Amino acid sequence: MRQLDTENLGFARIDHHRVLRKGFPEVVLCDGKTPAQAAAILLRLYHAGQGPVLGTRADEQVWRLVQDEVPEFTYHPLARAVYLRRGVPPACGRVLVVSAGTSDLPVAEEAVLTAELMGAEVARLYDVGVAGLHRLLAAQAELQAARVLVVVAGMEGALVSVIAGLVDKPVIGVPTSVGYGTQFAGVTPLLSMLNACSSGVAVVNIDNGFGAGYLAALINRLGSQPDT
Amino acid sequence: MRQLDTENLGFARIDHHRVLRKGFPEVVLCDGKTPAQAAAILLRLYHAGQGPVLGTRADEQVWRLVQDEVPEFTYHPLARAVYLRRGVPPACGRVLVVSAGTSDLPVAEEAVLTAELMGAEVARLYDVGVAGLHRLLAAQAELQAARVLVVVAGMEGALVSVIAGLVDKPVIGVPTSVGYGTQFAGVTPLLSMLNACSSGVAVVNIDNGFGAGYLAALINRLGSQPDT
Amino acid sequence: MRQLDTENLGFARIDHHRVLRKGFPEVVLCDGKTPAQAAAILLRLYHAGQGPVLGTRADEQVWRLVQDEVPEFTYHPLARAVYLRRGVPPACGRVLVVSAGTSDLPVAEEAVLTAELMGAEVARLYDVGVAGLHRLLAAQAELQAARVLVVVAGMEGALVSVIAGLVDKPVIGVPTSVGYGTQFAGVTPLLSMLNACSSGVAVVNIDNGFGAGYLAALINRLGSQPDT
Amino acid sequence: MRQLDTENLGFARIDHHRVLRKGFPEVVLCDGKTPAQAAAILLRLYHAGQGPVLGTRADEQVWRLVQDEVPEFTYHPLARAVYLRRGVPPACGRVLVVSAGTSDLPVAEEAVLTAELMGAEVARLYDVGVAGLHRLLAAQAELQAARVLVVVAGMEGALVSVIAGLVDKPVIGVPTSVGYGTQFAGVTPLLSMLNACSSGVAVVNIDNGFGAGYLAALINRLGSQPDT
Amino acid sequence: MRQLDTENLGFARIDHHRVLRKGFPEVVLCDGKTPAQAAAILLRLYHAGQGPVLGTRADEQVWRLVQDEVPEFTYHPLARAVYLRRGVPPACGRVLVVSAGTSDLPVAEEAVLTAELMGAEVARLYDVGVAGLHRLLAAQAELQAARVLVVVAGMEGALVSVIAGLVDKPVIGVPTSVGYGTQFAGVTPLLSMLNACSSGVAVVNIDNGFGAGYLAALINRLGSQPDT
Amino acid sequence: MRQLDTENLGFARIDHHRVLRKGFPEVVLCDGKTPAQAAAILLRLYHAGQGPVLGTRADEQVWRLVQDEVPEFTYHPLARAVYLRRGVPPACGRVLVVSAGTSDLPVAEEAVLTAELMGAEVARLYDVGVAGLHRLLAAQAELQAARVLVVVAGMEGALVSVIAGLVDKPVIGVPTSVGYGTQFAGVTPLLSMLNACSSGVAVVNIDNGFGAGYLAALINRLGSQPDT
Amino acid sequence: MRQLDTENLGFARIDHHRVLRKGFPEVVLCDGKTPAQAAAILLRLYHAGQGPVLGTRADEQVWRLVQDEVPEFTYHPLARAVYLRRGVPPACGRVLVVSAGTSDLPVAEEAVLTAELMGAEVARLYDVGVAGLHRLLAAQAELQAARVLVVVAGMEGALVSVIAGLVDKPVIGVPTSVGYGTQFAGVTPLLSMLNACSSGVAVVNIDNGFGAGYLAALINRLGSQPDT
Amino acid sequence: MRQLDTENLGFARIDHHRVLRKGFPEVVLCDGKTPAQAAAILLRLYHAGQGPVLGTRADEQVWRLVQDEVPEFTYHPLARAVYLRRGVPPACGRVLVVSAGTSDLPVAEEAVLTAELMGAEVARLYDVGVAGLHRLLAAQAELQAARVLVVVAGMEGALVSVIAGLVDKPVIGVPTSVGYGTQFAGVTPLLSMLNACSSGVAVVNIDNGFGAGYLAALINRLGSQPDT
Repeated sequence: MRQLDTENLGFARIDHHRVLRKGFPEVVLCDGKTPAQAAAILLRLYHAGQGPVLGTRADEQVWRLVQDEVPEFTYHPLARAVYLRRGVPPACGRVLVVSAGTSDLPVAEEAVLTAELMGAEVARLYDVGVAGLHRLLAAQAELQAARVLVVVAGMEGALVSVIAGLVDKPVIGVPTSVGYGTQFAGVTPLLSMLNACSSGVAVVNIDNGFGAGYLAALINRLGSQPDT
Repeated sequence: MRQLDTENLGFARIDHHRVLRKGFPEVVLCDGKTPAQAAAILLRLYHAGQGPVLGTRADEQVWRLVQDEVPEFTYHPLARAVYLRRGVPPACGRVLVVSAGTSDLPVAEEAVLTAELMGAEVARLYDVGVAGLHRLLAAQAELQAARVLVVVAGMEGALVSVIAGLVDKPVIGVPTSVGYGTQFAGVTPLLSMLNACSSGVAVVNIDNGFGAGYLAALINRLGSQPDT
Repeated sequence: MRQLDTENLGFARIDHHRVLRKGFPEVVLCDGKTPAQAAAILLRLYHAGQGPVLGTRADEQVWRLVQDEVPEFTYHPLARAVYLRRGVPPACGRVLVVSAGTSDLPVAEEAVLTAELMGAEVARLYDVGVAGLHRLLAAQAELQAARVLVVVAGMEGALVSVIAGLVDKPVIGVPTSVGYGTQFAGVTPLLSMLNACSSGVAVVNIDNGFGAGYLAALINRLGSQPDT
Repeated sequence: MRQLDTENLGFARIDHHRVLRKGFPEVVLCDGKTPAQAAAILLRLYHAGQGPVLGTRADEQVWRLVQDEVPEFTYHPLARAVYLRRGVPPACGRVLVVSAGTSDLPVAEEAVLTAELMGAEVARLYDVGVAGLHRLLAAQAELQAARVLVVVAGMEGALVSVIAGLVDKPVIGVPTSVGYGTQFAGVTPLLSMLNACSSGVAVVNIDNGFGAGYLAALINRLGSQPDT
Repeated sequence: MRQLDTENLGFARIDHHRVLRKGFPEVVLCDGKTPAQAAAILLRLYHAGQGPVLGTRADEQVWRLVQDEVPEFTYHPLARAVYLRRGVPPACGRVLVVSAGTSDLPVAEEAVLTAELMGAEVARLYDVGVAGLHRLLAAQAELQAARVLVVVAGMEGALVSVIAGLVDKPVIGVPTSVGYGTQFAGVTPLLSMLNACSSGVAVVNIDNGFGAGYLAALINRLGSQPDT
Repeated sequence: MRQLDTENLGFARIDHHRVLRKGFPEVVLCDGKTPAQAAAILLRLYHAGQGPVLGTRADEQVWRLVQDEVPEFTYHPLARAVYLRRGVPPACGRVLVVSAGTSDLPVAEEAVLTAELMGAEVARLYDVGVAGLHRLLAAQAELQAARVLVVVAGMEGALVSVIAGLVDKPVIGVPTSVGYGTQFAGVTPLLSMLNACSSGVAVVNIDNGFGAGYLAALINRLGSQPDT
Repeated sequence: MRQLDTENLGFARIDHHRVLRKGFPEVVLCDGKTPAQAAAILLRLYHAGQGPVLGTRADEQVWRLVQDEVPEFTYHPLARAVYLRRGVPPACGRVLVVSAGTSDLPVAEEAVLTAELMGAEVARLYDVGVAGLHRLLAAQAELQAARVLVVVAGMEGALVSVIAGLVDKPVIGVPTSVGYGTQFAGVTPLLSMLNACSSGVAVVNIDNGFGAGYLAALINRLGSQPDT
Repeated sequence: MRQLDTENLGFARIDHHRVLRKGFPEVVLCDGKTPAQAAAILLRLYHAGQGPVLGTRADEQVWRLVQDEVPEFTYHPLARAVYLRRGVPPACGRVLVVSAGTSDLPVAEEAVLTAELMGAEVARLYDVGVAGLHRLLAAQAELQAARVLVVVAGMEGALVSVIAGLVDKPVIGVPTSVGYGTQFAGVTPLLSMLNACSSGVAVVNIDNGFGAGYLAALINRLGSQPDT
């Protein structure tokens, strides 16, 4: 059994046990690995499991390598994700992914894809930054319909504070590196979100759409599993 | 109606509408206000509402001022909170508040108190830092029984990564300012938690036990409200 | 003439010429000077000029020293200012000083006092932070009536972005050191304001109510002096 | 009406209402958007409005895409701006854009272009850094003739303090990333300007010529609209 | 004698005396030098000494230049090292090099190579990060068998704290730049390791596999040289 | 057995198993705990174990509390340590603790005490900073006689680089917060030591004399335990 | 001889040889030492040497301790220096110490005292910050008469750039911690001075009047010792 | 006359007066300017003056442009300088430029070239970092022969402290960006040099060989101009 849990490829020790512990297989952060390493791990996860397979921050080369062997793999160029939709439970609940601007879309789409692969129903509300507040106020119904919200924002990240002041659901802030100068590649909205004057907010790493989508799906699932 | 929503004390504009929008009344961050200002706001919230009242980062003087008028107010010296337990719904679900060390208790207790006032059942698991990993491994049952976990840690904050690798529930990391030198008053565990190699984690501001407890209660509530 | 311009007290070289160059006499930053030094400079400005006299970041001891000699001096304890209202032109225009929270009042009041001494009509709009957005939206008329706005905010400073998205007048952001942890004594709202997604914003130093009030009065005056 | 206000392109939600709220149409920060996205937004602003259109931080490819459809668009390679001069009111007042050195020109020109499109008369005073102070002192007349000054400086940014000590008009400091080592890509002049010992100064983000030009035009306009 | 100690190449002053003082010849950090400079120094070390020769952070071009003259030189592309295994004492003791993830391998391999060239027996334990703790717990025997451990980790670097809590041997932490956003190119695991709640840990510079391998070999050697 | 390992005091979970895993009982960082908490933990360690007991960063009040119950406890005011020398093995090997200046003594003495309690023979070499290099060169014999060196330095910490260039033994650098201005409470020597141009160096947290003494004793012990 | 050079007090190793190497005896940084330690070192320097004795950053208690034994010692409360003027060569050359404001005087006076004790003739030019540029321009003769200039400035430190643009002599910049918010206790003028657009400038640590005065005296002396 | 002083090229205002004020013509920092701008300024300085012409941080293209018109211009590829040696006074005094390593040579050579063009006799002492201290101690005569020393060092920059402890002449520290990880592109040696425990040191910007060479030549000149 224990042998089965961990598969040692030499350069990687795949954690097949994770699906039991965490309810979702290991996800591969492809950045920093060679394409060959990333592809090998993705393919082992494919062959050894029965659920979805996801590689983030992957370039097209990784996709080509896995697709050569398993044509069902898909590439999402904006989100830079290689994935295979398999064994996904029926969509439940409602995760709302909000973006402040157009430039935040790569991160927002990574969140959408991750949450969907984990079984969440996901809706999008894009480009509703506070410079034009009426865009957001016009979307009150969508905000209230969500069970959990992922708010993706660069620049100063003020959108998180405003939204968290309007809803009574958990808000996950995702700072992005969109901006220049003192935006410091995402540090400014990160700090802004950590100090949000509205309550009910927590934050993930800069540009970490995956982490936000994953956590949103975990939370969303709670609402579909009545207390035992 | 709208007049009722906001009460202008001159130095403060109390948001009585918040209980409708957010499901919980305004909470008063007493630090930075004069004791007289903090007490006045707490008392207005008491008189105008019917739910719990909570003031955080309050010194004893604030408590004495409110207690003079409303003796039911309580003071929690470790968590530095002034509060009144009123109109709290029956405890539901299970929030587990974990601390890495003894010095993290003030923050952990702030989280516990907040979540309880918002209607969560809360359990504690204290002083299980990774320097003695067997302490944590011995508590697997408690970890698995939680619907959402608040993990409070100073020093390097590694406990968050380890716990998030063991459970399939949302983990809220609270970095504390416990440590010295390059701990930088909490920056180190904050960065550590933001970069946790385990998924399912989000983070609040340094020493923000209130924010973590609040968010945990929001998430916890989802599990007790079967999907409509 | 030139001798008259500068008065050398040994430890200070008073710039009496400033009222000609800048339209307002030298203002004394008392912090960092001994009370005796601060008082001596204030008194020289009093005796040599005919306009208002202002000392900022002054403790009560400075005030007592100047008051001993010139009883007309006033002390504003919240703003920590020693001043003498003399030779102030009739109030014109409209500067609106907005604060996000109660704890921002010391800085906001410093801005109010400075702008008033420089001849501006000043209105206040306090405690309208974005956690309760309806408080701000209810004050649209006051926002639109201003010729220039000073927005004072701690925590994450999101109020500046929201207000600048609603008005077509200059907005001066004043970050305050109100908050804790990653608020970093005002760095967070400073960065937030510098990266505001709304246009028409500029920023002064953390807690610099004086600088904002001064600049607001300069801008406000332009609107009362039709183009020549 | 409200439908008209916001146009949803899927990847962008154009704020056509902005011209009413802010007196100037939405400006497009092209950096971070794909050229196709940037061009599509610029063209929608062109077709839906009647005023000027401006895209900042745009490369030539954006310009080619919009020019294919609307040949009247111009490209300013130094300022990296795509724009169309249309519906600009007659120039009024006087904005003076000052630069410390030759390398600051891209940022200075962005400020000039923005202020001109918003209806300001703009003059330039370039390469008058404090290393050769006589260059600046020889330009006293130009300094005094301005209604508002934009001072663009890299290196240590001392020019802002010196100029603000000489004039009684608002000074907007724009730190640039010109320099090396501890200049930290503009952080040094930003800090320098925020701590200017002269009063009457506010600051925008590093390299943000657009923001400074925009704000300068707002302030400049006040002087041409006698108080009502 | 003294002339012999230092050889002046003009651009470099080779420290041939080092093998006497430090027990190991000078190692060449090739990064920052021209390939010609790096190769010239490596060749002088080869011709003047009798022990191993090592150049770190070298690209292939350095290797080709030295190989042209001395074909015995080897290139390790992953570790980016040029080296010649000569005069290495028989392997003794046991250095264990542990990596948290696959992306940490270049740094880990640099440590392995360095320690081996200095006479240590080295074992590898790769990809045992705390997200899948059972991988580490399954390797207890390997951990206990080591005389000194080098732990290489990016992300949040929590592996160091966990391992140091399990062994009674020295642990050398090597933070790597693997990660993104607030990982800040290795600053996060560096801070994490410096604040490890387990004792018996010291840290080297980010990505400094060489330094860790060198120090590990020094420590390892102590265990093979019974006290005199 | 397992029950025995961990003792739950409510506010603390004492790790009695540590002496088995690590070869030394848990050490109590008293700072951040109340004196009563610190004393209670120290006393439990005393009663449950048979080895030395050590509390670091303790004020005198902690000592008085433990001494009331166990008079054998000693207080070291310079090192701010409460300790009991019991069950210490006969001193072996040679740890040399070097300090750059007089102000570094509190940290150096903490290292000395810790290493001695763990069974090392310890020598001191104090105030040999590089401003007077001959002081260090005169101590070559002492440097060469050590099996492991702890080098404690504030200011710029250059002493570590110089010493590590002279010896072939492990050097543990301890940066201290001695200095002012850009010394940044120890950050400067920390960075300096991490980038030491000499090899064989690793670093612990700022002012962490305990950590350095502990690690030095671990390393020192290897030299007294001939390879098995 | 060598024994004579260094005197070991246990907690300090006095470098009596320094006067030969450096031309000036060891100076004692009293901050961080106990008053007893500081006094003991000062008295040993007094008894063993024949030149001036200087202790910086000393409080009055150090002075009292040395004065008890050697009444000739003087205390300079503003500069916080304990000193004895003995064996100072006849004043030569001309060091000009300039301060931007009144609050910079403690640092400026430390520089004056140090340079005087080392044999320089020193002149003062205080409170000539760039906010009132005419104060500086009126002092051109004093600027030109100096052989070396020490410029002490807090806030943004622009005075250094302006002065270095006017003279052809070395300028030593001393940033001070005078200011608030983003002045960051002297970091802002430090960065400003390091990036001065005028050439001929070097910088010492924040508030390091001693270091600047010392270096200025070294440079000044060169001008009085015609080339040999 | 005044017209002559400043020549306005539109994009640049050449300060021909500088040679009178500063004793050396304007030097052109080419980085950040277009090659055409840099070349135009260099050529104007050539035609209008009679002394040396120097452009720093120039690529070869700038050199080609100026050489097309004035073939006497030279390019120094290592120092990245374009220059013309003309009207240089006879070399006097002795500036010693010291480098810690081979990788510091580009910066060191920029210092050498600048000081030579300003009339100093310059000697080099390269690759004498403290890892092999005997290299430095063997060069005592060269150190003592210098009138002023420029010490160029990357990594941790300890060389400055050691040298300043050995000589009684001014030492100018130049931190370089040589290193990796926490070297932070030169911040580490900058901080190290600012906190040097030896006195007589001042520091210039990271990699600023020009600034150090310029200042060294100013100081060196003092020693050749007996006091008037």
